[in-house]
Amino acid sequence: MSERSGRVGRYVRMVAQPGRGGALADTLLRVAEGMRDVPGCELYVVNVSADEDDTVWVTEVWADERTSDQALSSDLGEVGIGEVLDLLAGPPELVDLTPLGGAGLRTP
Amino acid sequence: MSERSGRVGRYVRMVAQPGRGGALADTLLRVAEGMRDVPGCELYVVNVSADEDDTVWVTEVWADERTSDQALSSDLGEVGIGEVLDLLAGPPELVDLTPLGGAGLRTP
Repeated sequence: MSERSGRVGRYVRMVAQPGRGGALADTLLRVAEGMRDVPGCELYVVNVSADEDDTVWVTEVWADERTSDQALSSDLGEVGIGEVLDLLAGPPELVDLTPLGGAGLRTP
Repeated sequence: MSERSGRVGRYVRMVAQPGRGGALADTLLRVAEGMRDVPGCELYVVNVSADEDDTVWVTEVWADERTSDQALSSDLGEVGIGEVLDLLAGPPELVDLTPLGGAGLRTP
């Protein structure tokens, strides 16, 4: 396989309490702001589901496992992780990925 | 909700025939090369699943619905869509998204 790297990625699916999807998305956009300057954070994109109410997906790509673990354990930057968890209807679901490459990622 | 845009996004899950996941990923990386110069293609990232054999996910972000439709109907650039479909064990599954913003996307 070409372009293999040490990158790690994931899709994180979060379902907010009924009617709180907008608040969850706004909170995660504030988390994303804090990720802009985190070394090794290549992608942290907040999306709302086109089909499912109150469902938000975050697309993450990290330069390597270590930077991913560090950033996510540091209380999500300015915004406390409790602020996100308080809005959720259940635990987040993860799709764990190994990004190989493609268009639009910063060159490592 | 802040940062709303006309962007559209999707995660595309593709399961290759047994043992053909590497070939599928390589083919999609060639598709991705062709996407680099497509106007309105903000992200086209090829990932392999960390947990599921022969499963590939593509992360797409497009500037708007129109550019997405145009690019995907144009036979995936240099690589024919038949070349991708021949490797699959079943039809692709889509998670349709509205990207709101975040870190790592090009500024529109």
